[in-house]
Amino acid sequence: MEEGRRMYGLLKKIFPIYRHLTGNGVRQTLFILNAFLKKECAPLISIKEIPSGESVFDWTVPKEWRIEEGYIEDEKGNRIVDMRDNNLHIVAYSVPVDEWMELSSLKEHIYTQKDQPHVIPYVTSYYSERWGFCMSDEKKDALLEGRYHAVIKSELFDGCMTYGEAVVPGECEEEVFFSTYICHPSMANNECSGPALAAELVRFVSRLAKRRYTYRFVFIPETIGSIAYLAHKGWLSHLKGKMKCGFNLTCVGDDRSYSMVETRYADTFADKVLSNVLKYQTKGCYNRYSFLERGSDERQYCAPGVDLPVVGFSRSLFHKYPEYHTSADNLDIVCPSGLQGAFDAIKEAICGIEHNYYYKTKILCEPQLGKRGLYPTFSQKHSSDAVFDMSNFIAYSDGKNDLFDISNITGAPVSVLYGIAEILEKEGIVEKHASRCE
Amino acid sequence: MEEGRRMYGLLKKIFPIYRHLTGNGVRQTLFILNAFLKKECAPLISIKEIPSGESVFDWTVPKEWRIEEGYIEDEKGNRIVDMRDNNLHIVAYSVPVDEWMELSSLKEHIYTQKDQPHVIPYVTSYYSERWGFCMSDEKKDALLEGRYHAVIKSELFDGCMTYGEAVVPGECEEEVFFSTYICHPSMANNECSGPALAAELVRFVSRLAKRRYTYRFVFIPETIGSIAYLAHKGWLSHLKGKMKCGFNLTCVGDDRSYSMVETRYADTFADKVLSNVLKYQTKGCYNRYSFLERGSDERQYCAPGVDLPVVGFSRSLFHKYPEYHTSADNLDIVCPSGLQGAFDAIKEAICGIEHNYYYKTKILCEPQLGKRGLYPTFSQKHSSDAVFDMSNFIAYSDGKNDLFDISNITGAPVSVLYGIAEILEKEGIVEKHASRCE
Amino acid sequence: MEEGRRMYGLLKKIFPIYRHLTGNGVRQTLFILNAFLKKECAPLISIKEIPSGESVFDWTVPKEWRIEEGYIEDEKGNRIVDMRDNNLHIVAYSVPVDEWMELSSLKEHIYTQKDQPHVIPYVTSYYSERWGFCMSDEKKDALLEGRYHAVIKSELFDGCMTYGEAVVPGECEEEVFFSTYICHPSMANNECSGPALAAELVRFVSRLAKRRYTYRFVFIPETIGSIAYLAHKGWLSHLKGKMKCGFNLTCVGDDRSYSMVETRYADTFADKVLSNVLKYQTKGCYNRYSFLERGSDERQYCAPGVDLPVVGFSRSLFHKYPEYHTSADNLDIVCPSGLQGAFDAIKEAICGIEHNYYYKTKILCEPQLGKRGLYPTFSQKHSSDAVFDMSNFIAYSDGKNDLFDISNITGAPVSVLYGIAEILEKEGIVEKHASRCE
Repeated sequence: MEEGRRMYGLLKKIFPIYRHLTGNGVRQTLFILNAFLKKECAPLISIKEIPSGESVFDWTVPKEWRIEEGYIEDEKGNRIVDMRDNNLHIVAYSVPVDEWMELSSLKEHIYTQKDQPHVIPYVTSYYSERWGFCMSDEKKDALLEGRYHAVIKSELFDGCMTYGEAVVPGECEEEVFFSTYICHPSMANNECSGPALAAELVRFVSRLAKRRYTYRFVFIPETIGSIAYLAHKGWLSHLKGKMKCGFNLTCVGDDRSYSMVETRYADTFADKVLSNVLKYQTKGCYNRYSFLERGSDERQYCAPGVDLPVVGFSRSLFHKYPEYHTSADNLDIVCPSGLQGAFDAIKEAICGIEHNYYYKTKILCEPQLGKRGLYPTFSQKHSSDAVFDMSNFIAYSDGKNDLFDISNITGAPVSVLYGIAEILEKEGIVEKHASRCE
Repeated sequence: MEEGRRMYGLLKKIFPIYRHLTGNGVRQTLFILNAFLKKECAPLISIKEIPSGESVFDWTVPKEWRIEEGYIEDEKGNRIVDMRDNNLHIVAYSVPVDEWMELSSLKEHIYTQKDQPHVIPYVTSYYSERWGFCMSDEKKDALLEGRYHAVIKSELFDGCMTYGEAVVPGECEEEVFFSTYICHPSMANNECSGPALAAELVRFVSRLAKRRYTYRFVFIPETIGSIAYLAHKGWLSHLKGKMKCGFNLTCVGDDRSYSMVETRYADTFADKVLSNVLKYQTKGCYNRYSFLERGSDERQYCAPGVDLPVVGFSRSLFHKYPEYHTSADNLDIVCPSGLQGAFDAIKEAICGIEHNYYYKTKILCEPQLGKRGLYPTFSQKHSSDAVFDMSNFIAYSDGKNDLFDISNITGAPVSVLYGIAEILEKEGIVEKHASRCE
Repeated sequence: MEEGRRMYGLLKKIFPIYRHLTGNGVRQTLFILNAFLKKECAPLISIKEIPSGESVFDWTVPKEWRIEEGYIEDEKGNRIVDMRDNNLHIVAYSVPVDEWMELSSLKEHIYTQKDQPHVIPYVTSYYSERWGFCMSDEKKDALLEGRYHAVIKSELFDGCMTYGEAVVPGECEEEVFFSTYICHPSMANNECSGPALAAELVRFVSRLAKRRYTYRFVFIPETIGSIAYLAHKGWLSHLKGKMKCGFNLTCVGDDRSYSMVETRYADTFADKVLSNVLKYQTKGCYNRYSFLERGSDERQYCAPGVDLPVVGFSRSLFHKYPEYHTSADNLDIVCPSGLQGAFDAIKEAICGIEHNYYYKTKILCEPQLGKRGLYPTFSQKHSSDAVFDMSNFIAYSDGKNDLFDISNITGAPVSVLYGIAEILEKEGIVEKHASRCE
């Protein structure tokens, strides 16, 4: 639980920040993550800025938004809502307003979640200029007739969109990729859990005694952030040539289930890795969603023509847990054990990927394991059960299967198989190959 | 229900005609169909004749058959059966007889359906000269001992086998093909419904504002008709080069179920189209029969070496409904709504085929639908549900899928997808291709 | 049941012999089998010897073992166990011992099957020098304190490993292969049934009026025997070039179920043949085990790089029946009907293989079966049911399917299909091809 507790501590630190697509909330979040990494002696996140107005594929990087104050007061000066109480109260990217109006006019600018009357919904209006307040439907219903003062002191200006990137180099240039986002205000599972897990993973891979692959972590605003990241200076073509597999980390802090979102055709190495790992970690009880259930940045990474091998990983998937995108997605629904489970799954995936090769036996017929001390020296019913996994490993070491394939065929976890592979390689029974060979 | 009622009216007109493999019954039927088409200002059916004795693949076009009278009378002159009461009473292609005989001798020439004692079975003897009467098993059992006069005034002579063909040309030479048959006497579902639907479809496609494909409809005697059609003057090779897909229409008038008969390997475009259309029309509750359940002219169109992409389409499939090939297959078991459902399915298929292309996005990552007014300008939980189908369409517009593939992947009917495709093409988001492209 | 009774008689003759991996038990067994074959005027088994110490792939042919006496006696001279009572009492390949010892020391050399306290387990120690006795766990528990005399008069010496091979030549050099083993002491199902079935099959194929394929039968010690067989003088490469398919016969004498063990990827001709035959013989109620359930010489034949098309065939599979590898695997659990069922399955497989070709129709559209007397001359509902299999056979005679494929598609057993094939070939309707053709 060590990692779970550490991630939970980090998550709590970034929870209160008022993040939105651009601006100082994003920057502050990255500073906190870097403070964590520095303390853990891990590589830091480089902070990058893309200027407003830059064309990124079909989109344009929006203006930067700054907000100082946001509240509604009644005629007696009571503050009905105030962004200081909950930063979900303001529709993100609201244009300024400072106006007295009747309740009926105010209501046109109030957003609620009718099917969840107790919660404040999370609403944004990045690409259309409007202003608005969010509150619970109950609160809205209880508002009395009268005049109200709507105040939002905000500014939209040519600035930058900020994101972060950390790279931990390995022996080869092939990369394992992680993406998570830092554009959501105070919601815990979606999305303070993602950056907390990603930071912990930076720490983890940087401490590996040996790193075969290079690890790349990006901390970006959702949608426009990943689009800009891929488009900026032709970065997509760099990634396409190098990415072994990738994982989009989101909603990884609760303790209710495990989920993956497949790539478009569920046929990439990332799909193979994550489905295998989750199968063993959950004894088969995880949710495997098709790409039709996508909702996070896998939408960009797997878009036609982009076609990066990136799967989505979550505990409870966005859309599928009731607190999603509301004020109820608070610190109560995430926990150290939830984060720990997510960390364990990705750690298992990383260790599997690091150890993964195609294996080919060097011996015709079964090797004599007994003379190498790998098999019981006498034969009786059940005596060979202990070498079942080793024997199956050899049987499918024909150069056509990597460890994940062998695991899927034989039912042994990859972590068991690479232990076996090491022994058999040392014994000269199998040899490993970087790619499939017949 | 307009089409259903029109087809039902036409079906009733052709029901009483005494059709058999060849002869005037076939010709009369085609005249009635042409009268219908003329009234509807639709292209007419060309009437073709193939002479008796022509070799067609492994078969020979049989002699033409003509019958004037057919009855059995007892010693008192009571007519036990008379073809004027029901044209199923005579074994089709019976040779002439005019003979008094004992009951026991007569019985050797009486055919009944033992497992359905109330009905008159439909019996033919096209390729072996015999004479016979059909009646209900009850009636046969009730016959008293005595002498009976069997009279069939018929003639087999060198004539022709008649069939009809209507072609509605389109922009390209590729063809969509329909086949139905006109050789059955008074049975309503099998087979007055097929020609009625085919005629209505001639009307329908001729009125399309724009026709991409050429439509070919054949009205033929079953088995020998389709064989002769394919063999005559090497017509098969013409069809093979041009046929996009085809549908064999039979038993399309009742209201009990929807059925398709797959091609030999269920792998043609016709299989893809019809299974997709029926899935949505019936919410998945249709009968998908393998080629092992074949029984109509798909037997010829899908024979090895012929290999035309023709599926069978029916409401209740021949063999599967109890009235099949008996006098119980009468006007009571067909209805306007049954015919309408069949028409709707084929219409949906035609519209899908006409609009079908492979689509490829022209934009990397998701296009910004919002700036084109295709996406809500603010984002809140559930706000993007409305663009679910559009978003999925784009996600699978990678040049590998046509509309039917995308429909099968995403769960949206093709009729929804081509609406979306049109918008997205106009917006410059996707481009269409006539064939798969990577 | 003729074959079943004959095999049961033979099985009973070889049951009492004290067989082990090498030595006179193996030789005696082969003599008995040859006496049987001679009496039946069938080809004899050639007896081969491979010298101790020969390297065979990763293994070395072990020394030959001879045993004269083996018993434990107590201080009063009572024999607690004696190999003369049951030849499972001695751990096979025990080194000599002649020693008085306390019960506690003796117990270190006693092997029992704790989960089956009434039975004597079958234990071997071929590749590590030790001595030991096997008895029921009950008996061991009842031993009184005191001194015991352990006596094993055995000898390990440079000799030979013996095996047998019978070849029945056919018209072509392609071979159908059978392997069974002769290294087990008195156990009936595993493994006196295998050699009994194999000998009966030698008789059967030698009496075939016409043999398209060559049949090869090997009678070998398990594991080291098959490894040595494949390795000796490069025999593997001979087999790889010629083997059409093969069957490993083991545990074929009980009457409880039918089982097959697939090859590694379940994709060979042997898999296709045996699964097809068992499906019809058992109406689908057989056990189809994946290669993960392997346990006999399919382990060698299907090892990576060896890759021979050999499936395992059993009634109740080793591991799956409780008496396996114990004294309870005695004559009570095998029976003539069990052996007969096994024989019938393999006979069906052989007949199918002998008759198997790819078929291609020579006629476009359906052939006119009626004019050849193969179809009813009149048509009425259900009248064509009788030609259902023939009609399906023609429909899938497109050069892509062999008889087993057509059987799998159409649901008709291969034995029905080759009857049909013969008629249709004679009628000039189809032609046969040795290999797939399009």
